[in-house]
Amino acid sequence: MSDPLRQRILDELESIVLIDPHTHINPHSPASETLADILGYHYYTELAHSAGLERERIEQPGLDPKEKVGRLVEKLGELENTIQVSWLLEMCREFFDFQGDRVTTSNWEQLYDSAAAKMQEPDWEQQVLEKSGLEQVFLTNDFDDPLEGFDTARYIPCLRTDDLVFHLAKPDTRDRLTKASGVELKDAASLVSAIGRLFAHFVERDARACAISLPPEFAPVRVEATAAESAVQAVLSDRELSYDESRTLSCFVFWTLAEMCADHRLPFDLMIGVNRRVYEAGVFQGQDLFDMRTSLILYRELFNAFPQVTFPISVLGHTSNQELVSYSWIFPNVVTNGHWWYSNIPAYIELDCRSRLQAVPQTKQIGYYSDMYKLEFALPKFGMYRRILADVLARDFVIARSWSEDRAIELGRLVLRGNVERIFGRRG
Amino acid sequence: MSDPLRQRILDELESIVLIDPHTHINPHSPASETLADILGYHYYTELAHSAGLERERIEQPGLDPKEKVGRLVEKLGELENTIQVSWLLEMCREFFDFQGDRVTTSNWEQLYDSAAAKMQEPDWEQQVLEKSGLEQVFLTNDFDDPLEGFDTARYIPCLRTDDLVFHLAKPDTRDRLTKASGVELKDAASLVSAIGRLFAHFVERDARACAISLPPEFAPVRVEATAAESAVQAVLSDRELSYDESRTLSCFVFWTLAEMCADHRLPFDLMIGVNRRVYEAGVFQGQDLFDMRTSLILYRELFNAFPQVTFPISVLGHTSNQELVSYSWIFPNVVTNGHWWYSNIPAYIELDCRSRLQAVPQTKQIGYYSDMYKLEFALPKFGMYRRILADVLARDFVIARSWSEDRAIELGRLVLRGNVERIFGRRG
Amino acid sequence: MSDPLRQRILDELESIVLIDPHTHINPHSPASETLADILGYHYYTELAHSAGLERERIEQPGLDPKEKVGRLVEKLGELENTIQVSWLLEMCREFFDFQGDRVTTSNWEQLYDSAAAKMQEPDWEQQVLEKSGLEQVFLTNDFDDPLEGFDTARYIPCLRTDDLVFHLAKPDTRDRLTKASGVELKDAASLVSAIGRLFAHFVERDARACAISLPPEFAPVRVEATAAESAVQAVLSDRELSYDESRTLSCFVFWTLAEMCADHRLPFDLMIGVNRRVYEAGVFQGQDLFDMRTSLILYRELFNAFPQVTFPISVLGHTSNQELVSYSWIFPNVVTNGHWWYSNIPAYIELDCRSRLQAVPQTKQIGYYSDMYKLEFALPKFGMYRRILADVLARDFVIARSWSEDRAIELGRLVLRGNVERIFGRRG
Repeated sequence: MSDPLRQRILDELESIVLIDPHTHINPHSPASETLADILGYHYYTELAHSAGLERERIEQPGLDPKEKVGRLVEKLGELENTIQVSWLLEMCREFFDFQGDRVTTSNWEQLYDSAAAKMQEPDWEQQVLEKSGLEQVFLTNDFDDPLEGFDTARYIPCLRTDDLVFHLAKPDTRDRLTKASGVELKDAASLVSAIGRLFAHFVERDARACAISLPPEFAPVRVEATAAESAVQAVLSDRELSYDESRTLSCFVFWTLAEMCADHRLPFDLMIGVNRRVYEAGVFQGQDLFDMRTSLILYRELFNAFPQVTFPISVLGHTSNQELVSYSWIFPNVVTNGHWWYSNIPAYIELDCRSRLQAVPQTKQIGYYSDMYKLEFALPKFGMYRRILADVLARDFVIARSWSEDRAIELGRLVLRGNVERIFGRRG
Repeated sequence: MSDPLRQRILDELESIVLIDPHTHINPHSPASETLADILGYHYYTELAHSAGLERERIEQPGLDPKEKVGRLVEKLGELENTIQVSWLLEMCREFFDFQGDRVTTSNWEQLYDSAAAKMQEPDWEQQVLEKSGLEQVFLTNDFDDPLEGFDTARYIPCLRTDDLVFHLAKPDTRDRLTKASGVELKDAASLVSAIGRLFAHFVERDARACAISLPPEFAPVRVEATAAESAVQAVLSDRELSYDESRTLSCFVFWTLAEMCADHRLPFDLMIGVNRRVYEAGVFQGQDLFDMRTSLILYRELFNAFPQVTFPISVLGHTSNQELVSYSWIFPNVVTNGHWWYSNIPAYIELDCRSRLQAVPQTKQIGYYSDMYKLEFALPKFGMYRRILADVLARDFVIARSWSEDRAIELGRLVLRGNVERIFGRRG
Repeated sequence: MSDPLRQRILDELESIVLIDPHTHINPHSPASETLADILGYHYYTELAHSAGLERERIEQPGLDPKEKVGRLVEKLGELENTIQVSWLLEMCREFFDFQGDRVTTSNWEQLYDSAAAKMQEPDWEQQVLEKSGLEQVFLTNDFDDPLEGFDTARYIPCLRTDDLVFHLAKPDTRDRLTKASGVELKDAASLVSAIGRLFAHFVERDARACAISLPPEFAPVRVEATAAESAVQAVLSDRELSYDESRTLSCFVFWTLAEMCADHRLPFDLMIGVNRRVYEAGVFQGQDLFDMRTSLILYRELFNAFPQVTFPISVLGHTSNQELVSYSWIFPNVVTNGHWWYSNIPAYIELDCRSRLQAVPQTKQIGYYSDMYKLEFALPKFGMYRRILADVLARDFVIARSWSEDRAIELGRLVLRGNVERIFGRRG
């Protein structure tokens, strides 16, 4: 970042206070307690496992946090090229005054201890939020989350619905739904009622989005309650569903969610493209992959049926980005949302960011979210994104199109912050 | 473009007089009459609609052109990041002496009026052609276009055949075909005769290409007249076709077109990958999208069957570009053609242009076409392409491969102009 | 390469002595004898044919090598933009003291003669190896190759298995298998035995890998010997196989190969994505293309079933690279392998290289292989890769992440050489 133009733009972007529109933060324990909370992030455990560390050594029951970090550090050298390890170093430098170039078997213990000391300070959460320039954090809440005991003005509830759409055949899911909604499931209509209660509860507790992750082959279509009834009855009687029944039930619940989003004026975050448990011997949260052969054309009926619902869309595959750009360019209710998971590396962010800024209305782009499990990760992840964004603004707007720096910075502010406020803002 | 090397190459590329090998120009009204002809381009209406402008306000019957521009200008701020709006600004600066950075609700009326004054000058068409360095413009003519009343040495007819391949089941299409060809449709053989008459007429009127746009799933195969006969009879008796019959009929007509191209020595432009009317509530021409899951392998039989026909190929998806590069590298009759629609933005053009220049024989690349509806668009669109091309020539050839600037410029000249002349040239 | 940082890194990368982990070298005639061996490479013949040179003029029986070169040189001008022709020039300059910018009809004869003189020097092979900094060269051996008469410490045998998996229905394949293995094929069990003998022979002769190229739609699944028996019997009785039987047999043989790799501790190189004989009128080895619609999800069962086998994976499509990055990031037994064929051009290598270095453990990346048929090609092909790698190391590591130059060079050394040694090293 030695280029002065880029640096000036970056400085301005770094002064913007952020709202993080998608995370997995636990609002009852948002910050890390030891370095094990950081190195235990699946990005590190799965990469260490990929480089040869046995899952059993990472997930050993009762494993002491410090011992866990020690084991993972032994593999860090093999991963040090990855952008994920660069996040680790940036966190260690910014939060724990780490001075080294690498976390190694020689220096990790001191780092572990100084991090632990910092993390035990009573205002650690507040320190992290301030240092990261972070004002609000969107959560990912199970549908039966009571949403109590935390400040919903800082930690924004979002209703995560994967279980409802894909796991209703599990008795446990249905028990949780009955308990959370107070509605006894006896048919398709009561299932709709139960889901309606969840939405009412979430909205009352200031939820700002409904969200779901979807496999590459998912193709939502409208299913009427009558057409879903036999699949619902099958589930309720614990009969195993056929492939078609299972698909019908998923579509019925999914369509019901979209209707509820319309009724409650909630955006519906779609995270498209993940195949779950592809590598079943992998570490926790390190088992999922994808099939690039998917298309937003599968969502054609949905986008047409719900013009009043905003769909912030994340795609897992970099190869899906052009479709996302094009669908956002055409459909008023489709907006681009961040750089998700396997696409969240600079080589792909750069091209995806450029194409969005060149072809999607600037008001329809949510630049970035951290997807983090612990607060400390917002700093390096948004840092990575802001550096790329500064570079794109400098090259494609100030240099190539002769925009003023101020104007380029305003564009950056919009995709980083302004659009998050407006798109997820409460609408009366 | 502060880099002097790039600038020198660009200066030379800008001096090249162009032939635009694919447009939708109406030769009876090639230039704009008001700014509404420019802002009414679907790129602006669809982006404004995507940003929230109601279709009814854009397409209101009897809407005054000035009022229409005023309504669209209100949304321009939300689109100002797009490359399409950069084209608008470049047109306003170059053609109408506009001095601002933005077209806004405060300055648009003056711009509208000064543009209208310019456009009313009797030689406006000529002025635009000269300022744009444009010598010849290929058209997109309906198959029943009489091709009369314009100079076919400047405006080159091209036979567009989507209706014949995909809409022969519509009585209106068949009526138009009968009227245009003078052949009564009574079976597969007469359908071939009718199509033959169209080709004869077009070639007599100096047509240089047959063209068609195709959906992603289209897979042409040879269908003999006897195999198509029942589908043809079904159509003629207005019986609804089954999916298979419909496919058979499309393939039969498509294959017939390829045979006619062989007989009449016309290139067959294939524009591959568009799904029509995906967003049916969208504005005029702003309803089409795509499915990236397509492949040139679907055209295997066609490319093998017609070695004597040149197929200039456009792909809608950036993800299809590598296949296009590879098929052009292997098949003598496949050539790359421009950067189409959703791929026509700098982030994608840059990578697609680089890969083609690195791997396809230089004589088999048609660099760019404008796809414009009004003449004014050639200037900013070719301008965008030439800037990217200059950059690629500077970096990948002069710097990386130590080519002389002259040699790099010659390569640019070939893909910009020379290949268009040769590939679409009349062949005895 | 005027940037001093990049140049310093490149200088260091160029000093690294290489092992080329995949070639088609004939160890009995590794270097070229005339320029026809170089210009006869399919990259040149297919590009010349694509530009209009008739196959008959290239492949005329009994064609004199010098005459062949003369005919190809006539077309070189049309191909001079391609990266493949830049390889040719680099070879001519480095090996034959060629001074020109282009090989033309005026200067080729002198070049031909001086090259022939050089190539006749008794130590030409040694000269090429030294000048190219090449220590070991992996081969592609037919399964019935006796592997005799060459130095297996320099030319490393690899068992190529396409014929076994896809062409066992040909009597000639089975005859060769019986002859090479000494096992009479009479059922599935004897087929396994025969394959086992091949592995034993190859391993005894220092083979370091089993390799295969696979079509885009191939989806390996475990097939037990009993389930394959009827397909095996059909083949043995020369009955034509149904599509399903053919698929069953291919999977059975493929799965057997994976089991043998496990037993003999050999990596199994998978080269995924090629459709053979798409353009049947094309020149020798210039008939193959691909369908981008493939996915590594098709290999899910395989990767899970053989955790003990390393799978170095090459993908033909640039659009498959992100899946390769992600699968290598998650699966311990999947590693990235080079830049194959239609993806082996700078525009694609650059992005693919960047994404791998940003997200795959550094120990799991085999940077490059030449795929060459004659030794002279290693120099320009590895040269191209090293220039891109130097650029990526400079930008993404030294500049963007403040790595020291030494550290960036170490990373380069690992992907260029260290990983090849370790991943293909003999294990226990």
